[in-house]
Amino acid sequence: MSELSNESCEACRADAPRLSATELDALMEEIPKWQAVEIDGEKRLVADFSFDNFKDALDFTQTVGLLAEEYQHHPQIVLEWGHVKVYWWTHKINGLHKNDVIMAAKTDKCFVKEPS
Amino acid sequence: MSELSNESCEACRADAPRLSATELDALMEEIPKWQAVEIDGEKRLVADFSFDNFKDALDFTQTVGLLAEEYQHHPQIVLEWGHVKVYWWTHKINGLHKNDVIMAAKTDKCFVKEPS
Repeated sequence: MSELSNESCEACRADAPRLSATELDALMEEIPKWQAVEIDGEKRLVADFSFDNFKDALDFTQTVGLLAEEYQHHPQIVLEWGHVKVYWWTHKINGLHKNDVIMAAKTDKCFVKEPS
Repeated sequence: MSELSNESCEACRADAPRLSATELDALMEEIPKWQAVEIDGEKRLVADFSFDNFKDALDFTQTVGLLAEEYQHHPQIVLEWGHVKVYWWTHKINGLHKNDVIMAAKTDKCFVKEPS
């Protein structure tokens, strides 16, 4: 598991630097489940987590939501039967900050499927 | 509040009838917060619920998720800071059943904002 998940997510200001393409490429190697996509002109990180039912997907949504509250950095979460898509980006800078990669790594750690 | 919210959501079969345009128009009057939209060729009901923060939006997501589990009819829920969008439709019939309108009315009842 990436060590990024152990880093702290810092408060982000509107003048904080966006990740350069080179920085992002290097960091993405540490979160292979995630893709960088462009939505409404902003780069966002997205990953799709699969579950065998709705309840486990709901529980994961709750866990990631509480993680977001803890770090006061909030994703978009799309919940449906068997799937949760999580999008991380930094609205204040209209793009990606290192914080988003850290939160993506922390999200991966929340995804613990029970053996079936 | 609509009496629809007191009706039961019945198990839906693949050969269950979709709501006709006339039936849908009549039922939509009872859930004014909701719109019928077409996504991927299927009609869906959608409403956007607003909150003053992320935590209240997360709590609402949890409440609607548990409602869905109770009735074994599951929506798509899009959670972000200050907003929760809920989509109801019936995958088995690729469209809208009366169940979806009933679940929309029950969702409205979950939306109780505390006085600020």
